[in-house]
Amino acid sequence: MAEIQRVLVVGGTHGNEKTGVQCVKALNRNISQFRDRSYTVGTLLANTSAIEKNCRYIEQDLNRCFSNTLLNGEPQNVEQKRAQEINSQYGPKGDDSATDWIIDLHTTTTNMGLTLVVHQNDKPALQMAAYIQSLIPDAVIFYEDRDPAEDNFLGSIAKHSLLIEVGPVPQGLLRWDIFKLTQDGLFHALDFIERYNNNEIPVLPEELHTYEFIEKLHLPRDETGDICGMIHPDVQDNDYQPLNPGDPLFITDEGETICYDGSEQVFTAFVNEAAYYDQAHGLSLMRKKIVSCGSV
Amino acid sequence: MAEIQRVLVVGGTHGNEKTGVQCVKALNRNISQFRDRSYTVGTLLANTSAIEKNCRYIEQDLNRCFSNTLLNGEPQNVEQKRAQEINSQYGPKGDDSATDWIIDLHTTTTNMGLTLVVHQNDKPALQMAAYIQSLIPDAVIFYEDRDPAEDNFLGSIAKHSLLIEVGPVPQGLLRWDIFKLTQDGLFHALDFIERYNNNEIPVLPEELHTYEFIEKLHLPRDETGDICGMIHPDVQDNDYQPLNPGDPLFITDEGETICYDGSEQVFTAFVNEAAYYDQAHGLSLMRKKIVSCGSV
Repeated sequence: MAEIQRVLVVGGTHGNEKTGVQCVKALNRNISQFRDRSYTVGTLLANTSAIEKNCRYIEQDLNRCFSNTLLNGEPQNVEQKRAQEINSQYGPKGDDSATDWIIDLHTTTTNMGLTLVVHQNDKPALQMAAYIQSLIPDAVIFYEDRDPAEDNFLGSIAKHSLLIEVGPVPQGLLRWDIFKLTQDGLFHALDFIERYNNNEIPVLPEELHTYEFIEKLHLPRDETGDICGMIHPDVQDNDYQPLNPGDPLFITDEGETICYDGSEQVFTAFVNEAAYYDQAHGLSLMRKKIVSCGSV
Repeated sequence: MAEIQRVLVVGGTHGNEKTGVQCVKALNRNISQFRDRSYTVGTLLANTSAIEKNCRYIEQDLNRCFSNTLLNGEPQNVEQKRAQEINSQYGPKGDDSATDWIIDLHTTTTNMGLTLVVHQNDKPALQMAAYIQSLIPDAVIFYEDRDPAEDNFLGSIAKHSLLIEVGPVPQGLLRWDIFKLTQDGLFHALDFIERYNNNEIPVLPEELHTYEFIEKLHLPRDETGDICGMIHPDVQDNDYQPLNPGDPLFITDEGETICYDGSEQVFTAFVNEAAYYDQAHGLSLMRKKIVSCGSV
Protein backbone atom coordinates (compact mmCIF):
# COMPACT_ATOMS: atom_id res chain seq x y z
CA MET A 1 0.00 0.00 0.00
CA ALA A 2 1.31 3.45 -0.93
CA GLU A 3 2.73 5.48 1.92
CA ILE A 4 0.79 8.62 1.03
CA GLN A 5 -2.94 7.91 0.91
CA ARG A 6 -4.75 11.20 1.43
CA VAL A 7 -3.73 14.61 0.10
CA LEU A 8 -5.64 17.81 0.80
CA VAL A 9 -5.31 20.93 -1.37
CA VAL A 10 -6.37 24.05 0.54
CA GLY A 11 -7.34 27.51 -0.71
CA GLY A 12 -8.82 30.50 1.05
CA THR A 13 -7.06 30.08 4.38
CA HIS A 14 -6.91 33.84 3.91
CA GLY A 15 -10.25 34.89 2.47
CA ASN A 16 -9.02 37.68 0.18
CA GLU A 17 -6.30 35.59 -1.48
CA LYS A 18 -8.51 34.63 -4.41
CA THR A 19 -5.89 32.71 -6.39
CA GLY A 20 -5.89 29.72 -4.05
CA VAL A 21 -9.67 29.67 -3.98
CA GLN A 22 -9.76 29.71 -7.78
CA CYS A 23 -7.16 26.91 -7.99
CA VAL A 24 -9.30 24.77 -5.66
CA LYS A 25 -12.45 25.42 -7.70
CA ALA A 26 -10.63 24.63 -10.94
CA LEU A 27 -9.19 21.46 -9.37
CA ASN A 28 -12.68 20.37 -8.31
CA ARG A 29 -13.92 20.77 -11.88
CA ASN A 30 -10.97 18.82 -13.28
CA ILE A 31 -10.38 16.31 -10.49
CA SER A 32 -10.71 13.39 -12.92
CA GLN A 33 -7.18 14.08 -14.15
CA PHE A 34 -5.93 12.73 -10.80
CA ARG A 35 -8.18 9.64 -10.87
CA ASP A 36 -5.32 7.23 -11.60
CA ARG A 37 -3.02 8.46 -8.85
CA SER A 38 -1.84 6.21 -6.00
CA TYR A 39 -3.49 8.63 -3.51
CA THR A 40 -6.74 10.57 -3.27
CA VAL A 41 -6.86 14.36 -3.72
CA GLY A 42 -9.35 16.24 -1.57
CA THR A 43 -9.92 19.99 -1.53
CA LEU A 44 -10.86 22.47 1.16
CA LEU A 45 -11.90 26.11 1.13
CA ALA A 46 -10.66 26.93 4.60
CA ASN A 47 -11.99 30.27 5.85
CA THR A 48 -15.37 30.24 4.17
CA SER A 49 -16.70 33.26 6.10
CA ALA A 50 -13.70 35.37 5.13
CA ILE A 51 -13.89 34.19 1.50
CA GLU A 52 -17.51 35.34 1.39
CA LYS A 53 -16.59 38.75 2.80
CA ASN A 54 -13.37 39.00 0.71
CA CYS A 55 -11.24 39.76 3.76
CA ARG A 56 -8.20 38.04 5.24
CA TYR A 57 -10.09 36.89 8.34
CA ILE A 58 -13.12 37.81 10.44
CA GLU A 59 -11.72 37.89 13.99
CA GLN A 60 -8.31 36.20 13.96
CA ASP A 61 -5.94 34.98 11.25
CA LEU A 62 -7.08 31.36 10.68
CA ASN A 63 -3.50 30.46 9.83
CA ARG A 64 -2.51 31.18 13.44
CA CYS A 65 -5.16 28.92 15.02
CA PHE A 66 -3.67 25.42 14.68
CA SER A 67 -1.36 25.19 17.69
CA ASN A 68 -2.14 22.33 20.06
CA THR A 69 -3.24 24.88 22.67
CA LEU A 70 -5.82 26.55 20.42
CA LEU A 71 -7.04 23.27 18.91
CA ASN A 72 -7.71 21.80 22.36
CA GLY A 73 -9.07 24.86 24.18
CA GLU A 74 -12.52 26.49 24.19
CA PRO A 75 -12.76 28.44 20.87
CA GLN A 76 -12.80 32.21 21.41
CA ASN A 77 -13.86 33.33 17.92
CA VAL A 78 -15.07 32.10 14.51
CA GLU A 79 -11.58 31.25 13.27
CA GLN A 80 -10.66 29.19 16.34
CA LYS A 81 -13.98 27.36 15.92
CA ARG A 82 -13.28 26.79 12.21
CA ALA A 83 -9.76 25.52 13.00
CA GLN A 84 -11.22 22.91 15.35
CA GLU A 85 -13.79 21.86 12.72
CA ILE A 86 -11.02 21.46 10.12
CA ASN A 87 -8.83 19.57 12.58
CA SER A 88 -11.64 17.21 13.49
CA GLN A 89 -12.47 16.56 9.82
CA TYR A 90 -8.94 16.33 8.37
CA GLY A 91 -6.65 15.77 11.42
CA PRO A 92 -6.37 15.23 14.24
CA LYS A 93 -3.01 17.01 14.34
CA GLY A 94 -0.31 14.49 15.24
CA ASP A 95 1.03 11.16 14.09
CA ASP A 96 -2.46 9.71 13.61
CA SER A 97 -3.72 12.45 11.29
CA ALA A 98 -6.08 11.18 8.60
CA THR A 99 -4.36 13.52 6.13
CA ASP A 100 -0.88 12.64 4.90
CA TRP A 101 -0.18 15.84 3.00
CA ILE A 102 -1.60 19.35 2.92
CA ILE A 103 -0.70 21.80 0.13
CA ASP A 104 -1.93 25.23 1.25
CA LEU A 105 -2.19 27.93 -1.45
CA HIS A 106 -1.45 31.55 -0.57
CA THR A 107 -0.66 34.84 -2.31
CA THR A 108 1.26 37.94 -1.34
CA THR A 109 1.29 41.56 -2.50
CA THR A 110 5.09 41.36 -2.53
CA ASN A 111 7.41 40.49 -5.38
CA MET A 112 8.37 37.10 -3.90
CA GLY A 113 7.54 35.07 -7.00
CA LEU A 114 6.92 31.41 -6.16
CA THR A 115 7.96 30.82 -2.57
CA LEU A 116 7.83 27.34 -1.03
CA VAL A 117 7.33 27.62 2.71
CA VAL A 118 8.50 24.68 4.83
CA HIS A 119 7.58 25.16 8.47
CA GLN A 120 9.12 22.17 10.14
CA ASN A 121 12.31 20.21 9.65
CA ASP A 122 10.44 17.54 7.71
CA LYS A 123 12.47 15.70 5.07
CA PRO A 124 9.59 14.91 2.66
CA ALA A 125 8.52 18.58 2.75
CA LEU A 126 12.08 19.74 2.03
CA GLN A 127 12.34 17.17 -0.75
CA MET A 128 9.05 18.34 -2.27
CA ALA A 129 10.36 21.91 -2.22
CA ALA A 130 13.64 20.77 -3.81
CA TYR A 131 11.70 18.86 -6.46
CA ILE A 132 9.58 21.90 -7.36
CA GLN A 133 12.68 24.10 -7.40
CA SER A 134 14.38 21.67 -9.79
CA LEU A 135 11.51 22.32 -12.24
CA ILE A 136 10.98 26.03 -11.48
CA PRO A 137 14.50 27.30 -10.77
CA ASP A 138 13.30 30.78 -9.70
CA ALA A 139 11.30 29.27 -6.82
CA VAL A 140 12.62 30.19 -3.39
CA ILE A 141 12.53 28.00 -0.28
CA PHE A 142 11.48 29.77 2.90
CA TYR A 143 12.43 27.63 5.86
CA GLU A 144 11.47 27.58 9.52
CA ASP A 145 12.17 24.80 11.99
CA ARG A 146 9.09 24.99 14.21
CA ASP A 147 8.07 22.75 17.03
CA PRO A 148 5.04 20.83 15.65
CA ALA A 149 2.90 21.43 18.74
CA GLU A 150 3.47 25.19 18.52
CA ASP A 151 3.23 25.38 14.71
CA ASN A 152 -0.08 27.24 14.35
CA PHE A 153 -0.41 26.98 10.56
CA LEU A 154 -3.20 24.99 8.95
CA GLY A 155 -0.77 22.60 7.24
CA SER A 156 0.48 21.44 10.63
CA ILE A 157 -2.55 19.17 11.11
CA ALA A 158 -1.29 16.86 8.35
CA LYS A 159 1.70 14.56 8.57
CA HIS A 160 3.51 16.69 5.96
CA SER A 161 2.75 20.07 4.48
CA LEU A 162 3.93 22.72 2.06
CA LEU A 163 2.66 26.29 1.84
CA ILE A 164 2.86 27.76 -1.66
CA GLU A 165 3.05 31.58 -1.59
CA VAL A 166 2.93 33.49 -4.89
CA GLY A 167 3.17 37.18 -5.72
CA PRO A 168 2.97 39.96 -6.52
CA VAL A 169 -0.81 40.14 -6.69
CA PRO A 170 -3.16 42.52 -4.92
CA GLN A 171 -5.65 41.04 -2.50
CA GLY A 172 -9.14 40.52 -3.90
CA LEU A 173 -8.35 39.84 -7.55
CA LEU A 174 -7.06 37.20 -9.96
CA ARG A 175 -4.17 37.45 -12.42
CA TRP A 176 -3.51 34.74 -14.99
CA ASP A 177 0.29 34.80 -14.47
CA ILE A 178 -0.06 34.33 -10.70
CA PHE A 179 -2.85 31.74 -11.06
CA LYS A 180 -0.75 29.73 -13.53
CA LEU A 181 2.42 29.88 -11.43
CA THR A 182 0.45 28.73 -8.37
CA GLN A 183 -1.13 25.91 -10.35
CA ASP A 184 2.27 24.88 -11.76
CA GLY A 185 3.68 24.70 -8.23
CA LEU A 186 0.66 22.73 -7.04
CA PHE A 187 0.77 20.24 -9.92
CA HIS A 188 4.50 19.66 -9.40
CA ALA A 189 3.77 19.05 -5.70
CA LEU A 190 1.12 16.47 -6.61
CA ASP A 191 3.51 14.86 -9.12
CA PHE A 192 6.15 14.66 -6.39
CA ILE A 193 3.78 12.70 -4.17
CA GLU A 194 3.07 10.23 -6.96
CA ARG A 195 6.79 9.77 -7.53
CA TYR A 196 7.33 9.44 -3.78
CA ASN A 197 4.78 6.65 -3.52
CA ASN A 198 6.32 4.92 -6.53
CA ASN A 199 9.94 5.39 -5.38
CA GLU A 200 10.59 7.49 -8.48
CA ILE A 201 11.95 10.68 -6.95
CA PRO A 202 14.77 11.97 -9.16
CA VAL A 203 18.12 12.78 -7.61
CA LEU A 204 17.80 16.01 -5.64
CA PRO A 205 20.54 18.17 -4.18
CA GLU A 206 21.73 17.01 -0.76
CA GLU A 207 21.82 20.60 0.47
CA LEU A 208 19.11 23.21 -0.07
CA HIS A 209 19.73 26.93 -0.18
CA THR A 210 16.92 28.43 1.85
CA TYR A 211 15.99 31.68 3.56
CA GLU A 212 15.30 31.60 7.29
CA PHE A 213 13.13 34.20 8.99
CA ILE A 214 14.85 36.52 11.49
CA GLU A 215 12.36 39.27 12.36
CA LYS A 216 9.83 41.77 11.02
CA LEU A 217 10.59 45.50 10.96
CA HIS A 218 8.06 48.25 11.60
CA LEU A 219 7.31 50.98 9.10
CA PRO A 220 8.13 54.53 10.28
CA ARG A 221 5.53 55.64 12.84
CA ASP A 222 4.83 58.95 14.55
CA GLU A 223 4.46 59.49 18.29
CA THR A 224 0.82 58.33 18.15
CA GLY A 225 1.79 55.08 16.39
CA ASP A 226 0.42 56.22 13.01
CA ILE A 227 2.38 55.11 9.95
CA CYS A 228 4.25 58.18 8.58
CA GLY A 229 6.47 56.63 5.94
CA MET A 230 6.82 53.70 3.59
CA ILE A 231 9.25 51.27 1.97
CA HIS A 232 12.10 53.10 0.20
CA PRO A 233 11.86 52.84 -3.60
CA ASP A 234 15.29 51.13 -3.64
CA VAL A 235 13.79 48.26 -1.62
CA GLN A 236 10.22 48.17 -3.03
CA ASP A 237 9.71 45.07 -5.21
CA ASN A 238 13.20 43.82 -4.23
CA ASP A 239 12.44 40.70 -2.22
CA TYR A 240 15.24 38.23 -1.43
CA GLN A 241 17.85 40.93 -2.02
CA PRO A 242 20.74 41.78 0.32
CA LEU A 243 20.25 44.64 2.76
CA ASN A 244 23.46 46.00 4.23
CA PRO A 245 23.95 48.31 7.23
CA GLY A 246 23.46 51.88 5.97
CA ASP A 247 21.35 50.93 2.94
CA PRO A 248 18.18 52.98 2.30
CA LEU A 249 15.24 51.08 3.80
CA PHE A 250 12.30 53.42 4.46
CA ILE A 251 11.25 56.88 3.30
CA THR A 252 9.08 59.25 5.33
CA ASP A 253 6.01 60.95 3.87
CA GLU A 254 8.19 64.07 3.67
CA GLY A 255 10.79 62.26 1.56
CA GLU A 256 13.49 61.68 4.18
CA THR A 257 15.40 58.41 3.70
CA ILE A 258 15.79 56.12 6.72
CA CYS A 259 18.65 53.65 6.42
CA TYR A 260 18.95 50.13 7.77
CA ASP A 261 20.64 50.31 11.16
CA GLY A 262 21.42 46.61 11.61
CA SER A 263 24.94 45.39 12.19
CA GLU A 264 25.26 42.80 9.42
CA GLN A 265 24.00 41.88 5.98
CA VAL A 266 20.51 40.38 5.87
CA PHE A 267 18.03 39.62 3.09
CA THR A 268 14.59 41.07 2.43
CA ALA A 269 11.26 39.25 2.14
CA PHE A 270 7.57 40.16 2.37
CA VAL A 271 8.52 43.70 1.29
CA ASN A 272 5.32 45.76 1.61
CA GLU A 273 2.86 42.96 2.30
CA ALA A 274 -0.62 44.47 2.71
CA ALA A 275 -1.52 41.91 5.38
CA TYR A 276 1.30 43.24 7.57
CA TYR A 277 -0.21 46.74 7.87
CA ASP A 278 -2.47 45.84 10.81
CA GLN A 279 0.76 45.53 12.83
CA ALA A 280 2.52 48.32 10.86
CA HIS A 281 5.20 45.89 9.70
CA GLY A 282 7.05 46.84 6.50
CA LEU A 283 9.08 43.74 5.68
CA SER A 284 10.75 40.61 7.01
CA LEU A 285 14.47 40.14 7.41
CA MET A 286 15.94 36.79 6.47
CA ARG A 287 19.27 35.02 6.55
CA LYS A 288 20.48 32.44 4.08
CA LYS A 289 20.64 28.93 5.49
CA ILE A 290 21.77 25.67 3.99
CA VAL A 291 19.50 22.81 5.02
CA SER A 292 20.19 19.14 4.51
CA CYS A 293 17.52 17.61 2.31
CA GLY A 294 18.66 14.03 2.89
CA SER A 295 18.24 11.21 0.45
CA VAL A 296 14.78 9.83 -0.23
CA MET B 1 -12.21 88.92 -3.25
CA ALA B 2 -10.86 85.76 -4.88
CA GLU B 3 -13.42 83.61 -6.64
CA ILE B 4 -12.28 80.38 -4.98
CA GLN B 5 -12.36 80.71 -1.20
CA ARG B 6 -12.60 77.20 0.23
CA VAL B 7 -10.88 74.09 -1.05
CA LEU B 8 -11.33 70.65 0.50
CA VAL B 9 -8.83 67.81 -0.04
CA VAL B 10 -10.44 64.43 0.61
CA GLY B 11 -8.87 61.03 1.28
CA GLY B 12 -10.36 57.73 2.36
CA THR B 13 -13.64 57.99 0.48
CA HIS B 14 -12.78 54.32 -0.03
CA GLY B 15 -11.36 53.08 3.26
CA ASN B 16 -8.73 50.68 1.88
CA GLU B 17 -7.21 53.21 -0.54
CA LYS B 18 -4.48 54.21 1.91
CA THR B 19 -2.61 56.59 -0.41
CA GLY B 20 -5.24 59.32 -0.23
CA VAL B 21 -5.48 58.95 3.54
CA GLN B 22 -1.69 59.28 3.80
CA CYS B 23 -1.69 62.36 1.53
CA VAL B 24 -4.31 64.01 3.74
CA LYS B 25 -2.34 63.25 6.92
CA ALA B 26 0.88 64.55 5.33
CA LEU B 27 -0.98 67.67 4.15
CA ASN B 28 -2.26 68.28 7.68
CA ARG B 29 1.28 68.11 9.05
CA ASN B 30 2.58 70.49 6.39
CA ILE B 31 -0.45 72.74 5.91
CA SER B 32 1.66 75.86 6.65
CA GLN B 33 3.08 75.68 3.13
CA PHE B 34 -0.34 76.80 1.88
CA ARG B 35 -0.67 79.63 4.41
CA ASP B 36 -0.10 82.38 1.86
CA ARG B 37 -2.63 81.15 -0.69
CA SER B 38 -5.64 83.20 -1.77
CA TYR B 39 -7.92 80.40 -0.51
CA THR B 40 -8.07 78.10 2.50
CA VAL B 41 -7.24 74.40 2.27
CA GLY B 42 -9.27 72.07 4.46
CA THR B 43 -8.94 68.28 4.65
CA LEU B 44 -11.39 65.46 5.20
CA LEU B 45 -11.02 61.73 5.85
CA ALA B 46 -14.33 60.70 4.37
CA ASN B 47 -15.27 57.13 5.29
CA THR B 48 -13.72 56.98 8.74
CA SER B 49 -15.38 53.65 9.67
CA ALA B 50 -14.09 51.98 6.52
CA ILE B 51 -10.60 53.49 6.99
CA GLU B 52 -10.51 51.97 10.47
CA LYS B 53 -11.51 48.55 9.14
CA ASN B 54 -9.29 48.85 6.03
CA CYS B 55 -12.16 48.03 3.69
CA ARG B 56 -13.70 49.90 0.79
CA TYR B 57 -16.98 50.53 2.62
CA ILE B 58 -19.08 49.09 5.42
CA GLU B 59 -22.55 48.80 3.85
CA GLN B 60 -22.57 50.84 0.66
CA ASP B 61 -19.91 52.56 -1.45
CA LEU B 62 -19.77 56.08 0.07
CA ASN B 63 -18.89 57.44 -3.36
CA ARG B 64 -22.35 56.47 -4.58
CA CYS B 65 -24.28 58.26 -1.81
CA PHE B 66 -24.25 61.91 -2.92
CA SER B 67 -27.19 62.07 -5.33
CA ASN B 68 -29.86 64.59 -4.38
CA THR B 69 -32.23 61.69 -3.67
CA LEU B 70 -29.91 60.00 -1.15
CA LEU B 71 -28.80 63.26 0.46
CA ASN B 72 -32.39 64.30 1.09
CA GLY B 73 -33.94 60.95 2.08
CA GLU B 74 -33.92 58.99 5.33
CA PRO B 75 -30.43 57.36 5.53
CA GLN B 76 -30.55 53.56 5.18
CA ASN B 77 -27.00 52.69 6.26
CA VAL B 78 -23.79 54.12 7.76
CA GLU B 79 -22.52 55.45 4.44
CA GLN B 80 -25.77 57.28 3.59
CA LYS B 81 -25.65 58.79 7.08
CA ARG B 82 -22.00 59.78 6.62
CA ALA B 83 -22.78 61.34 3.23
CA GLN B 84 -25.46 63.53 4.82
CA GLU B 85 -23.04 64.57 7.59
CA ILE B 86 -20.40 65.51 5.01
CA ASN B 87 -22.96 67.36 2.91
CA SER B 88 -24.21 69.31 5.89
CA GLN B 89 -20.67 70.25 6.96
CA TYR B 90 -19.14 70.99 3.53
CA GLY B 91 -22.11 71.46 1.19
CA PRO B 92 -24.99 71.73 0.82
CA LYS B 93 -24.78 70.33 -2.69
CA GLY B 94 -25.83 73.01 -5.18
CA ASP B 95 -24.97 76.58 -6.11
CA ASP B 96 -24.77 77.69 -2.47
CA SER B 97 -22.24 75.07 -1.39
CA ALA B 98 -19.79 76.36 1.21
CA THR B 99 -17.02 74.48 -0.62
CA ASP B 100 -15.75 75.84 -3.91
CA TRP B 101 -13.49 72.95 -4.85
CA ILE B 102 -13.10 69.32 -3.78
CA ILE B 103 -10.04 67.28 -4.79
CA ASP B 104 -10.85 63.65 -3.96
CA LEU B 105 -7.88 61.23 -3.86
CA HIS B 106 -8.37 57.62 -4.98
CA THR B 107 -6.24 54.64 -6.03
CA THR B 108 -6.80 51.67 -8.28
CA THR B 109 -5.26 48.20 -8.62
CA THR B 110 -5.12 48.81 -12.38
CA ASN B 111 -2.29 50.20 -14.46
CA MET B 112 -4.08 53.50 -15.14
CA GLY B 113 -1.25 55.75 -13.97
CA LEU B 114 -2.49 59.21 -13.03
CA THR B 115 -6.09 59.54 -14.16
CA LEU B 116 -8.00 62.81 -13.76
CA VAL B 117 -11.70 62.09 -13.48
CA VAL B 118 -14.06 64.92 -14.44
CA HIS B 119 -17.67 63.97 -13.76
CA GLN B 120 -19.57 66.93 -15.05
CA ASN B 121 -19.18 69.25 -18.00
CA ASP B 122 -17.61 71.89 -15.78
CA LYS B 123 -15.11 74.19 -17.48
CA PRO B 124 -12.89 74.91 -14.44
CA ALA B 125 -12.63 71.17 -13.74
CA LEU B 126 -11.67 70.48 -17.35
CA GLN B 127 -9.17 73.32 -17.22
CA MET B 128 -7.66 71.98 -14.01
CA ALA B 129 -7.29 68.58 -15.67
CA ALA B 130 -5.70 70.21 -18.72
CA TYR B 131 -3.33 72.18 -16.49
CA ILE B 132 -2.20 69.03 -14.64
CA GLN B 133 -1.82 67.18 -17.94
CA SER B 134 0.38 70.01 -19.26
CA LEU B 135 2.77 69.31 -16.36
CA ILE B 136 2.38 65.51 -16.24
CA PRO B 137 1.95 64.55 -19.91
CA ASP B 138 1.21 60.88 -19.11
CA ALA B 139 -1.90 61.87 -17.13
CA VAL B 140 -5.16 60.74 -18.70
CA ILE B 141 -8.48 62.58 -18.54
CA PHE B 142 -11.50 60.39 -17.83
CA TYR B 143 -14.65 62.30 -18.70
CA GLU B 144 -18.32 61.89 -17.91
CA ASP B 145 -21.04 64.46 -18.43
CA ARG B 146 -23.34 63.72 -15.52
CA ASP B 147 -26.41 65.54 -14.40
CA PRO B 148 -25.36 67.27 -11.15
CA ALA B 149 -28.44 66.14 -9.23
CA GLU B 150 -27.81 62.51 -10.15
CA ASP B 151 -24.02 62.68 -9.75
CA ASN B 152 -23.59 60.51 -6.64
CA PHE B 153 -19.86 61.12 -6.11
CA LEU B 154 -18.57 62.97 -3.06
CA GLY B 155 -17.03 65.75 -5.13
CA SER B 156 -20.48 66.69 -6.43
CA ILE B 157 -21.32 68.57 -3.22
CA ALA B 158 -18.76 71.28 -4.10
CA LYS B 159 -19.11 73.85 -6.87
CA HIS B 160 -16.22 72.19 -8.73
CA SER B 161 -14.42 68.90 -8.25
CA LEU B 162 -11.69 66.68 -9.56
CA LEU B 163 -11.15 63.02 -8.65
CA ILE B 164 -7.51 61.94 -8.83
CA GLU B 165 -7.17 58.18 -9.41
CA VAL B 166 -3.69 56.62 -9.32
CA GLY B 167 -2.47 53.08 -9.91
CA PRO B 168 -1.37 50.38 -9.94
CA VAL B 169 -1.32 49.83 -6.20
CA PRO B 170 -2.93 47.04 -4.19
CA GLN B 171 -5.59 47.98 -1.68
CA GLY B 172 -4.38 48.28 1.88
CA LEU B 173 -0.80 49.40 1.36
CA LEU B 174 1.37 52.39 0.46
CA ARG B 175 3.95 52.69 -2.30
CA TRP B 176 6.24 55.71 -2.56
CA ASP B 177 5.88 55.99 -6.36
CA ILE B 178 2.08 56.05 -6.15
CA PHE B 179 2.04 58.35 -3.10
CA LYS B 180 4.37 60.80 -4.86
CA LEU B 181 2.41 60.78 -8.13
CA THR B 182 -0.83 61.40 -6.20
CA GLN B 183 0.78 64.23 -4.24
CA ASP B 184 2.21 65.75 -7.46
CA GLY B 185 -1.27 65.72 -9.01
CA LEU B 186 -2.77 67.23 -5.87
CA PHE B 187 -0.18 70.00 -5.60
CA HIS B 188 -0.61 70.91 -9.27
CA ALA B 189 -4.38 71.06 -8.66
CA LEU B 190 -3.85 73.43 -5.73
CA ASP B 191 -1.44 75.53 -7.81
CA PHE B 192 -4.06 75.71 -10.55
CA ILE B 193 -6.57 77.19 -8.10
CA GLU B 194 -4.08 79.84 -7.02
CA ARG B 195 -3.42 80.75 -10.64
CA TYR B 196 -7.17 80.74 -11.33
CA ASN B 197 -7.81 83.22 -8.53
CA ASN B 198 -4.93 85.39 -9.75
CA ASN B 199 -5.87 85.19 -13.44
CA GLU B 200 -2.56 83.52 -14.14
CA ILE B 201 -3.68 80.34 -15.89
CA PRO B 202 -1.24 79.59 -18.69
CA VAL B 203 -2.55 78.97 -22.19
CA LEU B 204 -4.21 75.53 -22.29
CA PRO B 205 -5.33 73.53 -25.31
CA GLU B 206 -8.81 74.46 -26.54
CA GLU B 207 -9.63 70.80 -27.04
CA LEU B 208 -8.92 67.99 -24.60
CA HIS B 209 -8.40 64.38 -25.60
CA THR B 210 -10.38 62.39 -23.05
CA TYR B 211 -11.77 58.91 -22.53
CA GLU B 212 -15.51 58.53 -22.03
CA PHE B 213 -17.02 55.57 -20.22
CA ILE B 214 -19.20 53.20 -22.28
CA GLU B 215 -19.86 50.13 -20.12
CA LYS B 216 -18.36 47.53 -17.79
CA LEU B 217 -17.88 43.93 -18.94
CA HIS B 218 -18.32 40.87 -16.73
CA LEU B 219 -15.57 38.33 -16.14
CA PRO B 220 -16.33 34.78 -17.37
CA ARG B 221 -18.86 33.15 -15.03
CA ASP B 222 -20.23 29.63 -14.75
CA GLU B 223 -23.91 28.68 -14.60
CA THR B 224 -24.02 29.46 -10.87
CA GLY B 225 -22.58 32.94 -11.42
CA ASP B 226 -19.15 32.03 -10.02
CA ILE B 227 -16.15 33.64 -11.71
CA CYS B 228 -14.40 30.95 -13.80
CA GLY B 229 -11.84 32.99 -15.74
CA MET B 230 -9.83 36.15 -15.67
CA ILE B 231 -8.37 38.98 -17.75
CA HIS B 232 -6.32 37.66 -20.67
CA PRO B 233 -2.57 38.27 -20.24
CA ASP B 234 -2.58 40.34 -23.46
CA VAL B 235 -4.96 42.80 -21.77
CA GLN B 236 -3.71 42.65 -18.16
CA ASP B 237 -1.89 45.90 -17.23
CA ASN B 238 -2.85 47.40 -20.60
CA ASP B 239 -5.21 50.20 -19.64
CA TYR B 240 -6.16 52.85 -22.20
CA GLN B 241 -5.19 50.53 -25.05
CA PRO B 242 -7.30 49.75 -28.13
CA LEU B 243 -9.46 46.63 -28.03
CA ASN B 244 -10.66 45.45 -31.43
CA PRO B 245 -13.37 42.92 -32.30
CA GLY B 246 -11.78 39.46 -32.09
CA ASP B 247 -8.92 40.50 -29.77
CA PRO B 248 -8.19 38.20 -26.80
CA LEU B 249 -9.99 39.61 -23.76
CA PHE B 250 -10.51 36.92 -21.10
CA ILE B 251 -9.02 33.50 -20.37
CA THR B 252 -10.86 30.74 -18.55
CA ASP B 253 -9.35 28.87 -15.60
CA GLU B 254 -8.74 26.04 -18.07
CA GLY B 255 -6.74 28.32 -20.36
CA GLU B 256 -9.30 28.91 -23.11
CA THR B 257 -9.11 32.39 -24.65
CA ILE B 258 -12.32 34.39 -24.96
CA CYS B 259 -12.19 37.18 -27.54
CA TYR B 260 -13.89 40.54 -27.54
CA ASP B 261 -17.18 40.20 -29.39
CA GLY B 262 -18.01 43.89 -29.81
CA SER B 263 -18.56 45.43 -33.21
CA GLU B 264 -16.08 48.31 -33.15
CA GLN B 265 -12.80 49.43 -31.64
CA VAL B 266 -13.00 50.55 -28.02
CA PHE B 267 -10.38 51.31 -25.33
CA THR B 268 -9.71 49.58 -22.04
CA ALA B 269 -9.74 51.07 -18.53
CA PHE B 270 -10.00 49.76 -14.97
CA VAL B 271 -8.54 46.46 -16.22
CA ASN B 272 -8.75 44.06 -13.26
CA GLU B 273 -9.83 46.50 -10.57
CA ALA B 274 -10.21 44.60 -7.28
CA ALA B 275 -13.17 46.75 -6.26
CA TYR B 276 -15.09 45.51 -9.32
CA TYR B 277 -15.09 41.87 -8.18
CA ASP B 278 -18.17 42.22 -5.98
CA GLN B 279 -20.10 42.65 -9.24
CA ALA B 280 -17.78 40.28 -11.19
CA HIS B 281 -16.77 43.09 -13.55
CA GLY B 282 -13.44 42.68 -15.31
CA LEU B 283 -12.87 46.03 -16.99
CA SER B 284 -14.46 49.17 -18.39
CA LEU B 285 -14.78 49.99 -22.06
CA MET B 286 -14.14 53.55 -23.12
CA ARG B 287 -14.29 55.66 -26.26
CA LYS B 288 -12.05 58.58 -27.09
CA LYS B 289 -13.79 61.92 -26.97
CA ILE B 290 -12.60 65.42 -27.68
CA VAL B 291 -14.01 67.92 -25.20
CA SER B 292 -13.86 71.66 -25.47
CA CYS B 293 -11.96 73.10 -22.56
CA GLY B 294 -12.85 76.71 -23.35
CA SER B 295 -10.72 79.69 -22.53
CA VAL B 296 -10.37 80.78 -18.92
